[in-house]
Amino acid sequence: MNASSHQSHPVPAIHQREVPAALIDALRQRFLEKLSTALVVREQHGRDESSFAAPPPAAVVFAESTRDVSDAVKLASDFSVPVIAFGVGTSLEGHLLAVQGGISIDVGRMNRILAVNAEDLTVTVQAGVTRKQLNEALRSTGLFFPIDPGADATLGGMSATRASGTNAVRYGTMRENVLALEVVSASGEVIRTGTRAKKSSAGYDLTRLMVGSEGTLGVITEVTVKLYPLPEAISAAICSFPSIEAAVRTTIQIIQLGIPIARVELIDSNTVRMVNVHSRLQMKEEPLLLMEFHGSPSGVAEQAEMVQEIATGFCGTAFEWATTPEDRTRLWTARHNAYFAAIQSRPGCRAISTDTCVPISRLADCLLDSVTEADASGIPYFLVGHVGDGNFHFGYLIDPDKPEEREIAEKLNHSLVTRALRLEGTCTGEHGVGLHKMDFLVSETGPGAVEMMRTIKRALDPKNIMNPGKIFKL
Amino acid sequence: MNASSHQSHPVPAIHQREVPAALIDALRQRFLEKLSTALVVREQHGRDESSFAAPPPAAVVFAESTRDVSDAVKLASDFSVPVIAFGVGTSLEGHLLAVQGGISIDVGRMNRILAVNAEDLTVTVQAGVTRKQLNEALRSTGLFFPIDPGADATLGGMSATRASGTNAVRYGTMRENVLALEVVSASGEVIRTGTRAKKSSAGYDLTRLMVGSEGTLGVITEVTVKLYPLPEAISAAICSFPSIEAAVRTTIQIIQLGIPIARVELIDSNTVRMVNVHSRLQMKEEPLLLMEFHGSPSGVAEQAEMVQEIATGFCGTAFEWATTPEDRTRLWTARHNAYFAAIQSRPGCRAISTDTCVPISRLADCLLDSVTEADASGIPYFLVGHVGDGNFHFGYLIDPDKPEEREIAEKLNHSLVTRALRLEGTCTGEHGVGLHKMDFLVSETGPGAVEMMRTIKRALDPKNIMNPGKIFKL
Repeated sequence: MNASSHQSHPVPAIHQREVPAALIDALRQRFLEKLSTALVVREQHGRDESSFAAPPPAAVVFAESTRDVSDAVKLASDFSVPVIAFGVGTSLEGHLLAVQGGISIDVGRMNRILAVNAEDLTVTVQAGVTRKQLNEALRSTGLFFPIDPGADATLGGMSATRASGTNAVRYGTMRENVLALEVVSASGEVIRTGTRAKKSSAGYDLTRLMVGSEGTLGVITEVTVKLYPLPEAISAAICSFPSIEAAVRTTIQIIQLGIPIARVELIDSNTVRMVNVHSRLQMKEEPLLLMEFHGSPSGVAEQAEMVQEIATGFCGTAFEWATTPEDRTRLWTARHNAYFAAIQSRPGCRAISTDTCVPISRLADCLLDSVTEADASGIPYFLVGHVGDGNFHFGYLIDPDKPEEREIAEKLNHSLVTRALRLEGTCTGEHGVGLHKMDFLVSETGPGAVEMMRTIKRALDPKNIMNPGKIFKL
Repeated sequence: MNASSHQSHPVPAIHQREVPAALIDALRQRFLEKLSTALVVREQHGRDESSFAAPPPAAVVFAESTRDVSDAVKLASDFSVPVIAFGVGTSLEGHLLAVQGGISIDVGRMNRILAVNAEDLTVTVQAGVTRKQLNEALRSTGLFFPIDPGADATLGGMSATRASGTNAVRYGTMRENVLALEVVSASGEVIRTGTRAKKSSAGYDLTRLMVGSEGTLGVITEVTVKLYPLPEAISAAICSFPSIEAAVRTTIQIIQLGIPIARVELIDSNTVRMVNVHSRLQMKEEPLLLMEFHGSPSGVAEQAEMVQEIATGFCGTAFEWATTPEDRTRLWTARHNAYFAAIQSRPGCRAISTDTCVPISRLADCLLDSVTEADASGIPYFLVGHVGDGNFHFGYLIDPDKPEEREIAEKLNHSLVTRALRLEGTCTGEHGVGLHKMDFLVSETGPGAVEMMRTIKRALDPKNIMNPGKIFKL
């Protein structure tokens, strides 16, 4: 998985700024053994799950406090050197790559749960806490944090990319679930963007400006999120369908009827096979919906009954229920590992992931044509989808040593995004723009909106040191 | 209700910029009879429900299209003259006052429903559509739009103040429900801030930057919002309590248990009396909770049963159910008119409204001490609250000709906000900052966050023409 070990996609517009030795000296003096310039450490911090390659950052600061982050940013600012925040490195869009050089600030050691306010259904954590760590810490409270991207990402990284996952159809995304942030600005100042109040009309929504800003406006150091009571009853089910279309049409109807389903995930038959191998499961190798229902026992029963009726109408086969918590965990872990299952299905491959999201009524139009195109291309792929939100991912599994495969995959992606935009959707539902979708962003929002983003960026980061070269070209 | 007809609170920092005759001439040439300079029209557009007074704007443009708004802003920009967007004038915080002079752009005629996408649960409207008009237009679709501030405000105004209302406990606020906006920027450019996709990670969240920006960053011309299926079953109930504390503790427990109640509103005994008179009702003149349950018939029954059990534990009296749609409408209309009922209870008075919102566990602490203080002050008041969100409003009913009453009310407000901030809450849950809460905003967020807001404002509106003098001092 080392991006530098094989031919990778050239990163657009690399312009490495110089990192002066005086900065490294100053950082070493301030951070001592918390600073590393070892190549292996720098390389590890200079890549992510994307297929891009770039030279690694010049140094890595292992921050242990907001003060550490602030001091590192201040020093970098003094020398006008780029700063890239690093959580656990699971970004899919090249967010972590030092395309303009600079230093990496690893917040992984900032992993303390600062305040569980169970009586208010909120928790405040340092940015390096991961979603699994958080839910582990909440275990005794009867509460949980629902947002679950595939990887065990940090809350800081999830905030920065406006992440979501399988539960978003019911519980929303980071956009809806972050109440407040602590952020270190481009000048090193520590800002708090909100309170723990559930609602607020107190000035500009700095919280949501930072959520999804991909490290380009500041480094997130603390995150306050909403929690939810663990449902009294949970049940999960698998339902297989004769075609992807049948599964999608079932989903559309579930959403349009307002059934408060907690999870409804599409997996195509190819991907079911990969997941079966990787997670030693025996799911029927047909397109399927993986579903979960949360509520009171009678509420869950009611939802499940309605959904079964809809699925039957589209020739869905009888539900298989996962009744025990262990069975459910196994199923959802397998789903979360679909990406890795797919990667391992073709040794040495890289995945080019798509992330379009369209209004629910357009889901079938968008998805089915894209399946036809992908099948015709000959490139192996996986297909999974948070279809209740109109969001799905193709992962085209390319051989990185074959430029022609990358070209075909990029063409498929381009065609898919063009289709999604025509259907009033977005090029990225949850992964972010990073390096990969900068041109798509302009097509999606128009040059005026992107120019407004640039104006905000220039004003808040006049030296252009916060993760430069991402989201848009300045 | 004419702000200039009696002594009003002086507006801080009035600095009237000149509106050159050449601008008025240019506007007249472009807008003909859609431009008014009549004093009565200007006065009507130069006030809102706040108790502030300022000279009226120099002219009012009755925009009928986004193009009209864009052209008006461009002309104003040419002359560096302020622009204030006007919907129906129901702001409570002085947002509409021309404290620095300028022109008003009335979007009230931009009242077309542009696209009902029932199959996606979204609708796109022009900014001048009001919430009641929207729900009327949705009547045949089986869908509804839940956000309901007291007044029949426009969707543009509701977006600009990040409004909410009685349904927010279940359905969220404008923050959660606006999917995309069309906005005219300070240079007159037309920007679209998002798509109709339910989720997106496509760059900075311009939608949520504009939501709550109180007209200081642009004029909202179109709004795309989420819709919800009308619940299969709805039931509403009144439950009286021996004390405000008992009602509040009941609410806290409902929320902490995660019961998906749709509405839970507190009304104190004083206000019950005012509402009874105004709306010819016979509610028991004790503190009460007005509640509503949405869901399937069995789900509603289940929720109601749990809530009744909790209320009984706090000595709530037997529920009175409003079973027919007509009864429910009468009850909620009465609740929405509480503000007007209170104003009419003391002829000639003005209300100084508070809007604090605190984490639910702090609600009793925040509210009860404030009630004690208000009772001791001798100033009549009303008290209503979206208590499920930790948000409540005192309205101190002052005689505008008695400066000493205003002073007492402001002291009560100051004490309440200080308490709310100490309890990790906000000075404004849903009304916005406007003119009244600028100092509180600094106390709440700290000078660094306000400076970040100012930096954004300066960058996006370099001539400071978009509703200047609101939210913060530049």
